[in-house]
Amino acid sequence: MNSSTQANTTTSQATVAESNRSRVLQHLYHNGVSSRAQIAKSLNLTPAAITKITAQLIEAGAIEETGDMEGAKNRRSIGLMLDTERFHIIGVKFARSLVQVGVFDLCGNTLGLEDLPPVTNETIGEAVRLMHVRLQSLLDADPSIIAIAMAVPGPYMRDEGRTAVVSSMLGWRDVNFIEEFGHAFRVPVFVEQDARAGALAHYLFDPESHGEDDISYFLVGEGVGLGVIENERIINGALGAATEIGHVSIDIDGKPCDCGNRGCLERYCSTPAIREMLIEEGGPVPHAELMSNTDAARALFALAREGVDSAVKMVRRIGRYIGYGCVNIFNTFNPRLIIIGDIVSEAGHLLLDEVQATVRSRSIREICDSTEIRLSTMPTDATVCGTAAVAATQFLDHPSMFFDLS
Amino acid sequence: MNSSTQANTTTSQATVAESNRSRVLQHLYHNGVSSRAQIAKSLNLTPAAITKITAQLIEAGAIEETGDMEGAKNRRSIGLMLDTERFHIIGVKFARSLVQVGVFDLCGNTLGLEDLPPVTNETIGEAVRLMHVRLQSLLDADPSIIAIAMAVPGPYMRDEGRTAVVSSMLGWRDVNFIEEFGHAFRVPVFVEQDARAGALAHYLFDPESHGEDDISYFLVGEGVGLGVIENERIINGALGAATEIGHVSIDIDGKPCDCGNRGCLERYCSTPAIREMLIEEGGPVPHAELMSNTDAARALFALAREGVDSAVKMVRRIGRYIGYGCVNIFNTFNPRLIIIGDIVSEAGHLLLDEVQATVRSRSIREICDSTEIRLSTMPTDATVCGTAAVAATQFLDHPSMFFDLS
Repeated sequence: MNSSTQANTTTSQATVAESNRSRVLQHLYHNGVSSRAQIAKSLNLTPAAITKITAQLIEAGAIEETGDMEGAKNRRSIGLMLDTERFHIIGVKFARSLVQVGVFDLCGNTLGLEDLPPVTNETIGEAVRLMHVRLQSLLDADPSIIAIAMAVPGPYMRDEGRTAVVSSMLGWRDVNFIEEFGHAFRVPVFVEQDARAGALAHYLFDPESHGEDDISYFLVGEGVGLGVIENERIINGALGAATEIGHVSIDIDGKPCDCGNRGCLERYCSTPAIREMLIEEGGPVPHAELMSNTDAARALFALAREGVDSAVKMVRRIGRYIGYGCVNIFNTFNPRLIIIGDIVSEAGHLLLDEVQATVRSRSIREICDSTEIRLSTMPTDATVCGTAAVAATQFLDHPSMFFDLS
Repeated sequence: MNSSTQANTTTSQATVAESNRSRVLQHLYHNGVSSRAQIAKSLNLTPAAITKITAQLIEAGAIEETGDMEGAKNRRSIGLMLDTERFHIIGVKFARSLVQVGVFDLCGNTLGLEDLPPVTNETIGEAVRLMHVRLQSLLDADPSIIAIAMAVPGPYMRDEGRTAVVSSMLGWRDVNFIEEFGHAFRVPVFVEQDARAGALAHYLFDPESHGEDDISYFLVGEGVGLGVIENERIINGALGAATEIGHVSIDIDGKPCDCGNRGCLERYCSTPAIREMLIEEGGPVPHAELMSNTDAARALFALAREGVDSAVKMVRRIGRYIGYGCVNIFNTFNPRLIIIGDIVSEAGHLLLDEVQATVRSRSIREICDSTEIRLSTMPTDATVCGTAAVAATQFLDHPSMFFDLS
């Protein structure tokens, strides 16, 4: 069941070469400036092999020499570096009515970020056309851009390029992201389920969770999603439709969902569900029916922060539902860390306290005690900057996709 | 996120040697008699390396020469084989009140199988003592035994060696399987969560699912458990407590469970739940209160097969709950294949039909269409013979644990 079970696959020389180039890039990405001798030692490769690989990567423009550095035995040696600021990535987040575009470097630092006009079910086609124009103009303006990465709502069928269900906004189902954008630009385009991008962002970019092998990113916003890194690896499922916690029912006789199920978690704590709750129950936010889902949710959270009793109660109720979701995550994925992010996490500690109280009362003690639950504190939304993590992972794993290394 | 992200780990020569030995064993296990030249070609290793590795494995008694075979160019060459019938494994299944012991070969063929006396919460200590005696006498009688593997109810905390909760029979919590059995015998002892052993059995031994990368084994018996192989790898979670579908709630206001949650799936379709249902509802099985959980469930299934209306209705209801569980498995793990096994699967096609009808009415069409759900058809219960799959996997991955290969 480990890598050796794939022993029957013949490993070609080209695969070995690409794997070694990847290992050198990974080393420089994670360790910074290093000498050839340091890399050779760390990767258990011969000095001759390192000389060959690094020459090829320098020639292709992937890495560069920095001049003299302190060597291992106080001898001077030449440093090598991967300049992570020199390579830029365009990241796009499609979240039902919200579409955001950002530009990032290889370490996820935000160089630019903008919201595109809000999308309705009727204007999805127009939004896609606008995206083509915007992406092309960003590419024209910045020759350092090496990739575009997109985060889309799940369940996202990766081979097909399409989302299977986007509850409350089914029009997105008709967009095939791979056909639409896959070969439209001078750079490669990657598409990932939104919460998985968020999990990757925390795995690769967040100093507070970097290096943690078992992370779940629990996206609670326009939709409810989950990205799971288990033992250093993303869980995708056969079609890419795994970890869809938003469609795990918390009540088999509950509210119907567009996915065909009843009582899906998404129907109780996403921003569309919050807005629906505000309208149906005549809650504390006046004229919620005239607001977008996001604005209605944010208005509720603002009232709760001011201490308005009915708003506080509603935020607590939302927190309980998110807590039930966390208990399901415990029992299905048993991560060490659950990071709650996206719009609903803006409700802050009032929400988190209720999530944690619910989890304590509903879960197995040993698992509860060993699992940290916190709110995302990334400076840019984890899904948006997570797109850069998606592209950076491809860059480090498959350098020949980005450089002429033949 | 692939293997190359582990580039920082220095690969020692010893690790490389063990990995190559493992690859040779894997090749012989999956392909049968092969020449050195065939192995070298398939594994992309030099003839000199293969000569060295195979000499070492022959010397240690792991593999043997078979005499002449047809070579690739009609030249005669010597065949090598891993005699899977020559290595025996003792497998133990602890399932609350049921304890079974079997002996298997490396391919999961059953050489012997027995039920131990039924266990109650009060006799767990005695059952553990009896197991020591039984295992020692099996080891004394068969020098071919190379390992003992045990399947235990989840959530099983692998590093600690203990089950976190065994609903309806909490006494098992006090047994530390690693301390109790880990170093008690002349052979290595492995412990795995029961449904994961079942998933491994289907992955390694079942001709109908062999080679399928995304398998879920859905154990519905004394407990309700799940083992998931996703993209060729078992999902464990940080503590080993992942994939515990039996403790995913289907109704947040439902029946209380020993795990602290409410509405856990296990409370609606395990054999203890079925027996409870029969007693509380005065169902079709008379004197269910005097029967074991297994016997009560089997009596119900027999009546349903005879067409007794109230029994048929109850089996259908159980099928619906298992169906809700399958929908949760779709949305959390998105396997290609769900195999339902253990005692409740004995209800047969009446049950399976209801499971499939429930799944069709509750799940995302694309995922439903691409996921097969069937009953286990292994000749021996998948968890019991799955213990042999657990040990065989260790044997193939870590030969130096079983042979002197220094």
